[in-house]
Amino acid sequence: MADESEKVELEEGTLLLALEHENLEEFRKTFLDQHPYDQAKFFIKIDAELRMIVYQFLSPNEMATIFENIEIDNDEYEMYLAEMDPTFAAQMIGKMYVDDAVDVLNELDKEQVTNYLKIMDDEAAEDIRELLHYEEYTAGSIMTTEYISIHAHQTIHSAMQILKKEAPNAETIYYVYVVDEDNKLVGVISLRDLIIHDDETMISELMNERVYSVNVMEDQEEVARKIMDYDFLALPVLDNEKHLLGIITVDDIVDVIDEEASEDYSKLAAVSDVDSIDRGPFSAARKRLPWLIILLFLGMFTASLIGRFEETLNKVAILAVFIPLIAGMAGNTGTQALAVAVRRITLGDFEEESKLKLIFKEAGTGLITGSICGIVVTIVVFIWQKDIFLGLLVGISILATLTVATIAGAFIPLIMHKLKVDPAVASGPFITTINDIISILIYFGMATMFMQYLL
Amino acid sequence: MADESEKVELEEGTLLLALEHENLEEFRKTFLDQHPYDQAKFFIKIDAELRMIVYQFLSPNEMATIFENIEIDNDEYEMYLAEMDPTFAAQMIGKMYVDDAVDVLNELDKEQVTNYLKIMDDEAAEDIRELLHYEEYTAGSIMTTEYISIHAHQTIHSAMQILKKEAPNAETIYYVYVVDEDNKLVGVISLRDLIIHDDETMISELMNERVYSVNVMEDQEEVARKIMDYDFLALPVLDNEKHLLGIITVDDIVDVIDEEASEDYSKLAAVSDVDSIDRGPFSAARKRLPWLIILLFLGMFTASLIGRFEETLNKVAILAVFIPLIAGMAGNTGTQALAVAVRRITLGDFEEESKLKLIFKEAGTGLITGSICGIVVTIVVFIWQKDIFLGLLVGISILATLTVATIAGAFIPLIMHKLKVDPAVASGPFITTINDIISILIYFGMATMFMQYLL
Repeated sequence: MADESEKVELEEGTLLLALEHENLEEFRKTFLDQHPYDQAKFFIKIDAELRMIVYQFLSPNEMATIFENIEIDNDEYEMYLAEMDPTFAAQMIGKMYVDDAVDVLNELDKEQVTNYLKIMDDEAAEDIRELLHYEEYTAGSIMTTEYISIHAHQTIHSAMQILKKEAPNAETIYYVYVVDEDNKLVGVISLRDLIIHDDETMISELMNERVYSVNVMEDQEEVARKIMDYDFLALPVLDNEKHLLGIITVDDIVDVIDEEASEDYSKLAAVSDVDSIDRGPFSAARKRLPWLIILLFLGMFTASLIGRFEETLNKVAILAVFIPLIAGMAGNTGTQALAVAVRRITLGDFEEESKLKLIFKEAGTGLITGSICGIVVTIVVFIWQKDIFLGLLVGISILATLTVATIAGAFIPLIMHKLKVDPAVASGPFITTINDIISILIYFGMATMFMQYLL
Repeated sequence: MADESEKVELEEGTLLLALEHENLEEFRKTFLDQHPYDQAKFFIKIDAELRMIVYQFLSPNEMATIFENIEIDNDEYEMYLAEMDPTFAAQMIGKMYVDDAVDVLNELDKEQVTNYLKIMDDEAAEDIRELLHYEEYTAGSIMTTEYISIHAHQTIHSAMQILKKEAPNAETIYYVYVVDEDNKLVGVISLRDLIIHDDETMISELMNERVYSVNVMEDQEEVARKIMDYDFLALPVLDNEKHLLGIITVDDIVDVIDEEASEDYSKLAAVSDVDSIDRGPFSAARKRLPWLIILLFLGMFTASLIGRFEETLNKVAILAVFIPLIAGMAGNTGTQALAVAVRRITLGDFEEESKLKLIFKEAGTGLITGSICGIVVTIVVFIWQKDIFLGLLVGISILATLTVATIAGAFIPLIMHKLKVDPAVASGPFITTINDIISILIYFGMATMFMQYLL
């Protein structure tokens, strides 16, 4: 058995050739044998001309599978759809798993969505309409309605019949949900249990009545956290009256976790998004410039602050030498405290009462790290510059700066969280600037006050 | 139906009371009805005295379930095990899923491991020994040997018999692996397919021969990437001769993704690890100080570099005002480029040839962002200080700095990757210092050269 990835690579040539020669049979034979993710990778690699042939060679259903597995930027969906015949595109969307279909439609204009839904067959259109109105990043926006539900007063045998019938269309068949006559969730049973137990056992005897679920309005991060903690393969989504609306499966959650982690990371680095898609320098520059320009003006503000101490600087030029050191240390310790706070908030294990505790803890941490770094700096500067006053000035500045910067690093994301702003937004740039300002005020303030000892 | 999380919270009181009154029956009734993750959460919350009662109230098998679901720091495993009777502890480890058992044993001394394996029943000990020697962070270290395998010349009916028998012990029953007489992997079949199709169908007719797999030595990040991309619930692990050794399930991968993302994030923020466990300020300070001390000395080096330009500074004190701006901008743009490179390397979609392309792209991006920021700065400084030469000096410094810093940000992680060092290690501190140095050399170098225009 050759390695699967190698095989897929080898088949790329065959596929390209088949498309160029418009050899339908050869293309379909090789292509449809591949995993949908590999199909999607091939599809986004080829150019528009060849894609036009693919649209002719595949059915809407086959294209739907590709679209379910595609990993592209949101605006690229529109491009691909525009290339297709509108009827073909509408049929394809109708054939997709409804959660994926909604993801695609969410990227289009309202008008376009209405058009596609009009052409689509009614049942699919209705399923999609139901999901379309959920707000982004909520459980409702990532759930699918293609689950399997049974009733408590059935036997395993009759439940398995339903399962066999619905398996081809369900997103997962590994959990089966038990609902009452009002479609309220009353239990869950795993396929594992259905298989192990006797055919005549009643579902009510076997089902687990302690079902974890999420509300349809819940944040997707909460959902991800629950699935991760409890190692679920899927989680049911309920409305406020406990009606079963849909399910969220682990594969969608894996994407959420990856996205959210990338997002936190990107924000700490002050990039709008760090993705794997290869871009040209202009497109990359366009994405990074907004941050850089903001940071530039924040930096100018800091510069103007130093400018106010020009007189002090004129008298004791050596002070300038330590500006990057002090500002840098403030930035570093602030970022550390910030990262801890942001992660804790993201991870969600955060109770109201413990916020104050976090601030106190960070104040303590800042005081300890500040004292130690301050002592080290005092000694090093004294040895280097042979000036104990300069050493003390820099050392005490470091102590004060580190303490304040650490508290600020923890405090700001907590405030953001309170204000319902994603705390990760604040990260890198904001905290660094605040800490630059704090450190410069402390350093030059003290230097100006104790000028006579430095001259 | 009350919300499950609320119910668990209410039961906490019942459980505590039952333990305090040593009411075995009440405790077991409530506790064993909970989800293992909730059991684990309760267990790590209570104090040592009550834990001693739990060890008496539960069987090794029941404790094993808790330990499989526990989320604690690695050194805490040792503490809990030390509390238990050694025979009880050994039996418990023997009852755990073998991958989880190995995770626990990896945290202990060699001697302790040998002792536990000696007391344990032989079959369990052997399974564990087999997995213990795989290197950390490889596929082998996170796989489990509790999979289900069948042969191609069986019918669905006979395969289902095997499945029913092995289901209680297997980590997943949703994929069944098909092996030949040498235990080489030849195919895979999903439980979904087994259920949908006729009982008399031969496995060979139905199985998918294009099985994605990973080598036992492969990095766990690669495994995570594959499972995420292809939406697998499990992935088989093979040796170099394609023998089936074990499987890795999606729930373990979710943890890997979360860990790796946290790791990258932590390193960008220069903290050793950002976890959700609450620590005191001393413990937090101890974790952050090593980074801060390193950064402090790197900062002193930068300061000494500026010290060499003291004469220039003495003549034109205003130069000092722009040090944080220029160094800060270099740090920002470097971190952006670094984050993009690190994420791309972590995500694994990186071919040898494209490295040069990335560098060129980043050089282009740096030139574009540098030019725009440079022009903005020149104008602002000119308006503010009414000195076109100073404006040009700062502007050109920004242009040069941003270009070089962007290239450095992309180049350094690539070199790290080449040297087989985790590129995320380099991030924050390293890149910022290099860029501080570069920016100061450029800025003061130019200032000293064109001194006559500034006076």
